[in-house]
Amino acid sequence: MTTPLLIGMPGNEAMTKSLMPFLGAEIGQVELRAFPDGETHLQFLTDLSGRALIIICTMNHPNERILPLLFAAATARELGASTVGLVAPYLAYMRQDRRFKPGEAVTSRQVARLFSDAFDWLVTVDPHLHRYGSLSEIYRIPTCVVHAAPLMSQWIRSHVPNPVIIGPDSESDQWVSAVAKDANAPYTVLQKVRHGDRAVEISVRNLQDLDGRTPVIVDDIISSGRTMIEAVRLLIARGATTPVCIAVHGLFADNSNALLVQAGARVITSNSIPHETNGIDLGEIIAASIRELAQMPS
Amino acid sequence: MTTPLLIGMPGNEAMTKSLMPFLGAEIGQVELRAFPDGETHLQFLTDLSGRALIIICTMNHPNERILPLLFAAATARELGASTVGLVAPYLAYMRQDRRFKPGEAVTSRQVARLFSDAFDWLVTVDPHLHRYGSLSEIYRIPTCVVHAAPLMSQWIRSHVPNPVIIGPDSESDQWVSAVAKDANAPYTVLQKVRHGDRAVEISVRNLQDLDGRTPVIVDDIISSGRTMIEAVRLLIARGATTPVCIAVHGLFADNSNALLVQAGARVITSNSIPHETNGIDLGEIIAASIRELAQMPS
Repeated sequence: MTTPLLIGMPGNEAMTKSLMPFLGAEIGQVELRAFPDGETHLQFLTDLSGRALIIICTMNHPNERILPLLFAAATARELGASTVGLVAPYLAYMRQDRRFKPGEAVTSRQVARLFSDAFDWLVTVDPHLHRYGSLSEIYRIPTCVVHAAPLMSQWIRSHVPNPVIIGPDSESDQWVSAVAKDANAPYTVLQKVRHGDRAVEISVRNLQDLDGRTPVIVDDIISSGRTMIEAVRLLIARGATTPVCIAVHGLFADNSNALLVQAGARVITSNSIPHETNGIDLGEIIAASIRELAQMPS
Repeated sequence: MTTPLLIGMPGNEAMTKSLMPFLGAEIGQVELRAFPDGETHLQFLTDLSGRALIIICTMNHPNERILPLLFAAATARELGASTVGLVAPYLAYMRQDRRFKPGEAVTSRQVARLFSDAFDWLVTVDPHLHRYGSLSEIYRIPTCVVHAAPLMSQWIRSHVPNPVIIGPDSESDQWVSAVAKDANAPYTVLQKVRHGDRAVEISVRNLQDLDGRTPVIVDDIISSGRTMIEAVRLLIARGATTPVCIAVHGLFADNSNALLVQAGARVITSNSIPHETNGIDLGEIIAASIRELAQMPS
């Protein structure tokens, strides 16, 4: 068996380096550039012939990433790669999991079809499985889901004295309460009362649990971060000093990282999406799943 | 047979309207919007069940268009469209038609595979077939190529007194000389002498043919327009008044339209890509090819 080859799409260099030591893999290179008319030029600079190729491509700003990624996979096959796997630490297009209104595209299924055609297997971290029980409902290839919760608990244990864990809503009760248990911390949950389409009023259940503790708001994704920003403001108003916001995937749409910091929070994310808030390295646990799916000796 | 349904992707409204009267078709609606995290939401607002759907999507800035277009095609099939055809007046990703350097993606073939999977047929206008003899070398679905040359000749005949047609290079000799013949105009060609990677010196063969005539530079695509800009400068320096630049596809990368106008040219394009320079309406001749491929009565 030849040494597997890890190739990070542009922007995935840090994760690629983080995976390498746990896989005994080599790192290869791909170069992308844009022609003046907006077309992508893609070139592998490493020989792929006969190699088990592992492409790393996280999916924030997914529209600009997916087409070049499909080019990369198809080209790798033409160039003789023996297998082509995808590591997408953040997997986009998981929210539209049914046709809520007539005529809507169920994009989760369509992206899954494109990736299932292009790759031999997929590893991702905590995908936003809402109505799907597992990725196998939409993916035709072997998939493996990495859970960041244990590393989040570990980060909290070693960085936050006297934490109280706050879940974003009752839907995420199960995994956030597991993070709390694993961090030996009490657990409560935000409650949202919607007033119309945009206005959301936030309250915290069992507010007395917070006294003398550092609130740690845990979520899978920070996108626009609206609920989290409101929660931070509420906690600060109630006397908390520097609430911590932890998420697996820091998408930070609408400048939400700056707004969270302005509101008084400390923000920590995993490195599923490269960002200055990355404090939790997923390299080792992603590598374990890659070894499993790519049938590499552990 | 039910009435066919024309749906233009955003930005293709003018072409969609231009096609309608020649097809006896209805116009349907699709709505696209971007979530804060960059994902696309797509919704057909017209019932597609049992309809022969014709999607109009020209391919300037192709990377932002292709994924939503694939979503549209797959969703249309789920919603019961009987057939899904693609009209891409400008077909991008045709230049990379072989692996010039090791490791390069042959993107023309890969885009053709994605579109062949997604659509039942394709109509396009003067694709940049360089090393391919025809689209059937890379497309597995029926395709029809519309030729804009007759309409370009017609435009020249009715707008330019005493024209002399200038081809961009000897590669395009055949079709540009046909435009010239059809416009009853003499024909010559630009000659390029390359000095290194970027510097190109332009000259005009049979320069004496230009005397007393309006030079009309004809090309299939204006992208960065570098050669054309140089040619316009040369012609103006030699005393020409307002040379005309005509192209099928006005991509106008690198602000080239403004540069051509600054250099002293009048710029005319077909409406394969919506632009203020559009002077040639392809609606009727594209519609004829659609009728052929979609097996509609003419």
